[in-house]
Amino acid sequence: MSSAAVTPGSKGKVLLAYSGGLDTSCILVWLIEQGYEVLAYLANVGQEEDFEAAREKALKIGATKVFIEDLRREFVKETIFPAVQCNAIYENIYLLGTSVARPIIARKQMEIAKQEGCTHVSHGCTGKGNDQVRFELAYHALNPSIEVVAPWRIPEFYTRFPGRQHLLDYAEQKGIPVSQTRGKPWSTDENLFHISYEAGILEDPNVTPPKDMWKLTVDPEDAPDTPERIEIVFSGGNPSRVINKGDGTDVTDPLDLFVYLNTVARRNGVGRIDIVENRFIGIKSRGCYETPGGTLLRIAHMDLEGLVLDREVRAYRDEHVTPVYGRLLYNGMFFSPEGDLLNKIIPLTQASVNGTVRLKLYKGTASVEGRWSDTETLYDMDESSMDVQGGFEPLDSQGFIKIQSIRLKKWGAKALN
Amino acid sequence: MSSAAVTPGSKGKVLLAYSGGLDTSCILVWLIEQGYEVLAYLANVGQEEDFEAAREKALKIGATKVFIEDLRREFVKETIFPAVQCNAIYENIYLLGTSVARPIIARKQMEIAKQEGCTHVSHGCTGKGNDQVRFELAYHALNPSIEVVAPWRIPEFYTRFPGRQHLLDYAEQKGIPVSQTRGKPWSTDENLFHISYEAGILEDPNVTPPKDMWKLTVDPEDAPDTPERIEIVFSGGNPSRVINKGDGTDVTDPLDLFVYLNTVARRNGVGRIDIVENRFIGIKSRGCYETPGGTLLRIAHMDLEGLVLDREVRAYRDEHVTPVYGRLLYNGMFFSPEGDLLNKIIPLTQASVNGTVRLKLYKGTASVEGRWSDTETLYDMDESSMDVQGGFEPLDSQGFIKIQSIRLKKWGAKALN
Amino acid sequence: MSSAAVTPGSKGKVLLAYSGGLDTSCILVWLIEQGYEVLAYLANVGQEEDFEAAREKALKIGATKVFIEDLRREFVKETIFPAVQCNAIYENIYLLGTSVARPIIARKQMEIAKQEGCTHVSHGCTGKGNDQVRFELAYHALNPSIEVVAPWRIPEFYTRFPGRQHLLDYAEQKGIPVSQTRGKPWSTDENLFHISYEAGILEDPNVTPPKDMWKLTVDPEDAPDTPERIEIVFSGGNPSRVINKGDGTDVTDPLDLFVYLNTVARRNGVGRIDIVENRFIGIKSRGCYETPGGTLLRIAHMDLEGLVLDREVRAYRDEHVTPVYGRLLYNGMFFSPEGDLLNKIIPLTQASVNGTVRLKLYKGTASVEGRWSDTETLYDMDESSMDVQGGFEPLDSQGFIKIQSIRLKKWGAKALN
Amino acid sequence: MSSAAVTPGSKGKVLLAYSGGLDTSCILVWLIEQGYEVLAYLANVGQEEDFEAAREKALKIGATKVFIEDLRREFVKETIFPAVQCNAIYENIYLLGTSVARPIIARKQMEIAKQEGCTHVSHGCTGKGNDQVRFELAYHALNPSIEVVAPWRIPEFYTRFPGRQHLLDYAEQKGIPVSQTRGKPWSTDENLFHISYEAGILEDPNVTPPKDMWKLTVDPEDAPDTPERIEIVFSGGNPSRVINKGDGTDVTDPLDLFVYLNTVARRNGVGRIDIVENRFIGIKSRGCYETPGGTLLRIAHMDLEGLVLDREVRAYRDEHVTPVYGRLLYNGMFFSPEGDLLNKIIPLTQASVNGTVRLKLYKGTASVEGRWSDTETLYDMDESSMDVQGGFEPLDSQGFIKIQSIRLKKWGAKALN
Repeated sequence: MSSAAVTPGSKGKVLLAYSGGLDTSCILVWLIEQGYEVLAYLANVGQEEDFEAAREKALKIGATKVFIEDLRREFVKETIFPAVQCNAIYENIYLLGTSVARPIIARKQMEIAKQEGCTHVSHGCTGKGNDQVRFELAYHALNPSIEVVAPWRIPEFYTRFPGRQHLLDYAEQKGIPVSQTRGKPWSTDENLFHISYEAGILEDPNVTPPKDMWKLTVDPEDAPDTPERIEIVFSGGNPSRVINKGDGTDVTDPLDLFVYLNTVARRNGVGRIDIVENRFIGIKSRGCYETPGGTLLRIAHMDLEGLVLDREVRAYRDEHVTPVYGRLLYNGMFFSPEGDLLNKIIPLTQASVNGTVRLKLYKGTASVEGRWSDTETLYDMDESSMDVQGGFEPLDSQGFIKIQSIRLKKWGAKALN
Repeated sequence: MSSAAVTPGSKGKVLLAYSGGLDTSCILVWLIEQGYEVLAYLANVGQEEDFEAAREKALKIGATKVFIEDLRREFVKETIFPAVQCNAIYENIYLLGTSVARPIIARKQMEIAKQEGCTHVSHGCTGKGNDQVRFELAYHALNPSIEVVAPWRIPEFYTRFPGRQHLLDYAEQKGIPVSQTRGKPWSTDENLFHISYEAGILEDPNVTPPKDMWKLTVDPEDAPDTPERIEIVFSGGNPSRVINKGDGTDVTDPLDLFVYLNTVARRNGVGRIDIVENRFIGIKSRGCYETPGGTLLRIAHMDLEGLVLDREVRAYRDEHVTPVYGRLLYNGMFFSPEGDLLNKIIPLTQASVNGTVRLKLYKGTASVEGRWSDTETLYDMDESSMDVQGGFEPLDSQGFIKIQSIRLKKWGAKALN
Repeated sequence: MSSAAVTPGSKGKVLLAYSGGLDTSCILVWLIEQGYEVLAYLANVGQEEDFEAAREKALKIGATKVFIEDLRREFVKETIFPAVQCNAIYENIYLLGTSVARPIIARKQMEIAKQEGCTHVSHGCTGKGNDQVRFELAYHALNPSIEVVAPWRIPEFYTRFPGRQHLLDYAEQKGIPVSQTRGKPWSTDENLFHISYEAGILEDPNVTPPKDMWKLTVDPEDAPDTPERIEIVFSGGNPSRVINKGDGTDVTDPLDLFVYLNTVARRNGVGRIDIVENRFIGIKSRGCYETPGGTLLRIAHMDLEGLVLDREVRAYRDEHVTPVYGRLLYNGMFFSPEGDLLNKIIPLTQASVNGTVRLKLYKGTASVEGRWSDTETLYDMDESSMDVQGGFEPLDSQGFIKIQSIRLKKWGAKALN
Repeated sequence: MSSAAVTPGSKGKVLLAYSGGLDTSCILVWLIEQGYEVLAYLANVGQEEDFEAAREKALKIGATKVFIEDLRREFVKETIFPAVQCNAIYENIYLLGTSVARPIIARKQMEIAKQEGCTHVSHGCTGKGNDQVRFELAYHALNPSIEVVAPWRIPEFYTRFPGRQHLLDYAEQKGIPVSQTRGKPWSTDENLFHISYEAGILEDPNVTPPKDMWKLTVDPEDAPDTPERIEIVFSGGNPSRVINKGDGTDVTDPLDLFVYLNTVARRNGVGRIDIVENRFIGIKSRGCYETPGGTLLRIAHMDLEGLVLDREVRAYRDEHVTPVYGRLLYNGMFFSPEGDLLNKIIPLTQASVNGTVRLKLYKGTASVEGRWSDTETLYDMDESSMDVQGGFEPLDSQGFIKIQSIRLKKWGAKALN
């Protein structure tokens, strides 16, 4: 197709999820070339970014409008906290730091697209990854009438740009400013909750990431030699207060509290993992992640649940909510009938999760040193005691064991002897 | 009941699980007093113990025979390794160190009881804990015709010994040697896999355990300032070799390998937890645990599974095997129809779990630095690569997403807009 | 114990769940003999019963008060309808007819016990069955301070009455009227939802129940030779209207509607099963059940869900709610933390379950002949059509299949060839 | 593309799954036109078919070879019996009659394709259905190097044949014999296990299927007025013998036995359902099915499991195997890592499933009249008995209930009062 033949804007308005980097800058220009009017959208979910520079760059290279949205507060309250409440995790290890940001980013994008009369939305995700799926499933659920343009899946685009050098050439040719002449040998995605590293040299799962890759947390070996101690208070399963008597911190605002947890975890080297995971599309992929504050919240929240959550409610949540929720977040199904259902179920499990957990942070570790709850009473020191009789009749255990053994005796008599 | 009235041995032979400590020594003598002939049985599952001193003590206070059995090798191979293979865990945190020892101890006890013509077996577990359940369910399954004597659930016994002092008085009166005049203010259970601490001052869940409580592992703050690095090799999901180039270690024997992992984890402060858990009988209880080598195996095994296990097999195992197996171990159902079934299922999931994981140990942390597998091929660097096309057609993702969105669009059109 | 020594009423007031039959009449008199003041409580949950005769009998034999409570409406609305909403079933076959009545009966009993100042409640359940567990767990959860007297587990009682003849002798001696001189060779439990038959000649699982055992439903062989057709309307997963154009029925009141469904199912022989089930206490037991109206509701509700419930919500409910709820109902855990949670989850799954199902009833069968929903739109005739393209691009399936096959090709290349 | 330009056979050999009907006959000719050499493959999985006529037709219209394979025996033994063993079902109602045939058909097709040096395989499934997925996932897993040609997803094909009339025109033009001038207003898929009806007039889910649609079973209203009785014997969960004393039947061969069960179920009108289901690709679809013999096996097998299967093994299988297996069969994942795992797990659950079930068949119903097992002993008449004490101590139930209630009392004291 000859771009000369395209009337500018003839294909309608597209709202592009723009990062300011090389890829989405080239996409922005390419979309204009294809006949779209391009509006740029940049979500602030806590990543380190020069937002104003990105705004100027987008306008300079042809965007007709730029939207920069601070979504940090809703990110913390609407997806990070629910993930903490249900101890969300993927494949037993990954805290879903990218996944929890996507619904927040996509929702605002669709709101703006609707308000601005866009017929399309676009993004710079590759055709092999999870994020294309997460963004697009959210887009489709939120507004089925708006179309998606995914350049990295359009042959005209991806055959034109088979490598980074082709993007750099195009940028030069189109006058797109390029801040960094040499990319890092890995990709990253950063937000308030975490940063991910993948691709490049990390594709060999036996390559140890270089020390300078890790950006958010101090190397445990470089962390302070003296532990720090904090207290995290939970109300209804949500963190409601963080206290560090050592540095005088006492925060209650959800965003401030989360930012502080990041700070204290980062300086003590807490929250790194290095894994091989299974992407939704069936490919295995190696990723490294730093989730500083989120790791503290997970440890503290799970510990408190031990004290205040009924055994069967906990088991139900652990087996029937946590893995399902982790997988649906990972697979981009936050906005879905089942996502909606689970988002309603999670708080039902958390009414009794009230109390305080004391953590010690030291060179990459976060250990629980104690916990208490003023309002919850499932833990009963007398009952639990091995020394005190505590209203408990040993003979009851006798009956309990005997009844349990009926089935086993029958089986054992036959199978084992 | 007047003990004068009882003919010695008139109640038959009882095989007592004997520890050499105050409780089971008093029980031994009390059982003789009740008219039993008492045989003592002491399982070596790797706990620190003067077995010969215990033997002499048992004989001295009236046991007619003493059986000291080294079960460490079968412990490692028959319950520790399967637990590692399925990443067994209770309430997301406890590695089941007591639970995995019980089946091994109980099985040998029942073998000896049968061989010696015992009509009864006995143990010193309290009436409020999990271990009474674990031992007795195993006993009943393994030999329904042998009866159980559980003194701590017999009113004559527990009303006679309401506190530790009463046991000490009885010991003095009966000539039972007491090595320790003052007990520690907590209880412990130790084996090759772990040590547990509970009761006493730990009953207040907000009391931080004193530094000198922890017995197996060095305090992370006192661990070496330089990391140690090891490699763990797995074959069929079982650890088959451990290499530490730093100290020249290269072990392959299951028991040696496990003992070495304990050594290296202990000196680096790895494997402590402090939790509140839900006992089988419905009471909440605070416990502290050290599981040094087991913690390394868990981390390495789970990591390798990321590389070599199919996504759906992993998800199946994680959701349908691991939690069920963890709970049945905890609840003492190892010897049961469902335990038998799961023990057969676990190895079926592990055929592809072959490869090596490199760990860094440092002041309480154990981090994965890389992993590889010579035989497994689910991970494909080209396919995974964001740079290489790798036989993957981006248009396929398009169709994948579109099909996934059919359902979501219908729902979204109705529910969200 | 000599009854002469007991001061009447000295043990406090007990509220006995009374049926008017031989067992509970003897228990009533025996409790008085033991020193209790006995108040009788008879719940009307729809069983066939001469309630006034029972009242007179209770008073005649010594009850100081009698409470007869019509609980049918709350039974239908509070436990039958939720059971229908989640397709509750035990071991894939039993519709839990006894289990759903127990919470309703126990709750009112505890209300009256509290209001009357009773220190105890009592019941006539045997020591081997499920109902003792169901009643008592409900009692304990609802009011932990009221004690339970379970005569069939008290040695003085059960050794005194080892068989039915001993109860008859006692009745004669104490002047307890006995309406039936000869019991049926099985036991029954009847309510609005079902009737159960067990014990006696049914204990041999290969004995075919005699034709005259079945009480609620006509033998299919004796049912009309012409089918009957009804329509059941659901709103939010609850039945809200039943129409039978054949006999002019059009009912909307929950109780009337359920009674009518019983009527029409009974006359067409619908709802019989004959099974061997696993009791909570680990014993296998043979039971026969008739659940006429409940069977129709189950068939119609499940059918409608096919039309209106999202696939993943249905799968979630089927795998994570239905079996858990069935087991907790069966095991008497309705009033429990997890029961409370599930009772809140169930309605969350049912918002879209609105529509009408047409059933044909004929000689023991109930077949769906069609269904529709005016408000729900997940079913889309064009989209579903094999003839119409319907906004569906066949190429999308191509990509969907290709992505699904990535994993399988890797595995197949290795495992199968 | 002009067909004149294509050299015959230049695209290689394709093995087409051929049915002899209009669609696959047109596909056969069209594939030749595209430049393929076409070999035809027709699997006999028990459908009613004139196989020799199909062979002649395939050869007449251009196939260079025709393979007609009798797969009935392996179908019964390798997928029907495992489905029975685990009570496989989809969405609680559909017995998966199409799904269980697909792996058998696909496997033989890939074997022949390899042996004949085919580079491609092809089928006549539409682009909206489940069968394209089932066939192709099996193809890809079984032989990743053979390509798939799916004409109904190729734009050149499906735009050329937008409706049945276009296929008829093409057939006339190409000399393809058309046996039936008018198609039925629905589609069917038949095999030994079942027949399905969908599409056409059935697309309105409220249309009652016409009486003459149902092909395999007699209308219950037309079935005999006298019940028939049969006995089904199971060994290791597989049916091993069927006896009908009424007609003198006594069969043990797996295929003969299954054919006989079909016969007896068909004549008594057993096995019809009419549902709306969720296809893998996310579309809802209405289907009617007849599964005569399979329905009898399901009823009998589940009943016997009540008698002989341990409660917890049954619960495990019901919650962790049956739904997973049903879904993977439905979604075409039989040949997959997880399918392989489950195929190994299923027999592990069935070792004790030995015994006989007596069924009564009558006008669409199949009721259990009794069951017994000579070898299994979990059912214990004395223990189960309400009249006999049976080695069961009522006081044990007391302890069992008390222990269960600890948790509930704590919760109840707080939550309910």
